[in-house]
Amino acid sequence: MTTARSLTDFLAGQPIGVVGLGLIGGSLGLDLRQRGHQVVGLARRQSTVERAIERGLVDEASSDPSCLRGCGLVLLALPLNQLVKPDEALLQALPPEALVLDAGSVKQPVLAAWQHQLPRFVGCHPMAGTAEAGVEAGVAGLFQGRPWVITPTGQENPADLEMARALGRELGSTVIECDPADHDRAVAFISHMPVLVSAALLRSAAAAEPQGLLQALASSGFADTTRIGGGNPELGSLMARCNRKAVQEALAAYATALQQLSEQVEREDWTALQQALTSAQAARPSFL
Amino acid sequence: MTTARSLTDFLAGQPIGVVGLGLIGGSLGLDLRQRGHQVVGLARRQSTVERAIERGLVDEASSDPSCLRGCGLVLLALPLNQLVKPDEALLQALPPEALVLDAGSVKQPVLAAWQHQLPRFVGCHPMAGTAEAGVEAGVAGLFQGRPWVITPTGQENPADLEMARALGRELGSTVIECDPADHDRAVAFISHMPVLVSAALLRSAAAAEPQGLLQALASSGFADTTRIGGGNPELGSLMARCNRKAVQEALAAYATALQQLSEQVEREDWTALQQALTSAQAARPSFL
Repeated sequence: MTTARSLTDFLAGQPIGVVGLGLIGGSLGLDLRQRGHQVVGLARRQSTVERAIERGLVDEASSDPSCLRGCGLVLLALPLNQLVKPDEALLQALPPEALVLDAGSVKQPVLAAWQHQLPRFVGCHPMAGTAEAGVEAGVAGLFQGRPWVITPTGQENPADLEMARALGRELGSTVIECDPADHDRAVAFISHMPVLVSAALLRSAAAAEPQGLLQALASSGFADTTRIGGGNPELGSLMARCNRKAVQEALAAYATALQQLSEQVEREDWTALQQALTSAQAARPSFL
Repeated sequence: MTTARSLTDFLAGQPIGVVGLGLIGGSLGLDLRQRGHQVVGLARRQSTVERAIERGLVDEASSDPSCLRGCGLVLLALPLNQLVKPDEALLQALPPEALVLDAGSVKQPVLAAWQHQLPRFVGCHPMAGTAEAGVEAGVAGLFQGRPWVITPTGQENPADLEMARALGRELGSTVIECDPADHDRAVAFISHMPVLVSAALLRSAAAAEPQGLLQALASSGFADTTRIGGGNPELGSLMARCNRKAVQEALAAYATALQQLSEQVEREDWTALQQALTSAQAARPSFL
């Protein structure tokens, strides 16, 4: 029987670097420190650096990329726009002996931007979040019980993949591995396209009359259906931009599904509509 | 200064009839009894009659419509299909001296079906609910703080409207009055069309590949956006059927709003997309 190596085994005393100290980076720092790891944070702004130390997100932090020297593992917890276009100074400062992981929500463009530039890079997507952002957003236990997706391209060495898994396990996540293209297609359907579906609902309702009555009568059903569409606009737009092809495909599939229901209403085929709604009801539990 | 008359003033000792003892009827019975009113229930099935008495939803109950004799107020808490097509025996049994109110979620077809047949009829829509149905579903306090919509057509006498308001106040609801057509348009936008939007999302995701990965990665955002689409299929279909014209208009407006976002993605106009998502974000608080 072989026992999976723990993150501590892999690190052999080296610190972990966390680049970006917002919701994901800050939460990673908190959990990793709590588990006894030494965490070094890198942020652009001096105010973030200071606040991150104050909040105990990291052991030490700096706005100078050279702080990553000596790290055995570096986690890129940056916004997607920075992940798809690596910063040159950061690239130069990443220690060549470290394993570098990203935490971006789209994988193909991130892998295309980083993997050929670094000797050891593995794409990851910890699927956890809150509505908060920035250095105040990090919370302990964010990844507990959530998917930790790893998207191998075939270019990774097996030990690096094993280290990425060990990190996911260390954080209490469920480790899932899949092809990067499959990942991007799946998140387009269950996350990125739904943001647009939900936002379109808000926009159509906001333009309808009598507006005051609509607002007065909207209840928890409307609130639930529009929650993700009313979220961070930069993030929604960035996800569509970085995952455009898959989002377009998901939008097309969605438009077809909606058109089908619309036609059933149009031709007053209530049997077909009820069957379609029954299939929707039956499908939902598999996604929960 | 005039003081609004209470429901007790209006009833002058007469009992209240509740027709249908499911979620809405049962909850009305519980609240009205708790406030000291005498409640008589009418249900089709003897088993419902017995269980309603056992649960204390009503003081007495029967499957014989003649039990409504002597009631000063009768509340029709029936499914929409029974509201749009009145049962002849029920019509005959309704005491002509009683005010009759319905609780249907679509108002124009219900008013068209009942108002010309009864001397005193007012359309109402208590906007409250849970996912439950049937005689076990009724709960106390369901209407507290929720909208109690009254939709006058101009044919009601003022005292009857005042009595409908007194009922809404008695239940702790927020009384809202509006034109029946406006009501139907508003609920199409904030309730009936969103059910189809949400169901289409479930159906498109359930048909997408890799299905297992989609299911594994779906999180709370997907769960929220699909909650109403995965609800009771009979109810969803019935609402579309009874409010077809307004639902079609809402679907058309929605399709246009979604098409707009799709085109922004298509032509990679991220500035426009982010602006649209910003407007969606800004609109949402007014609906909460």
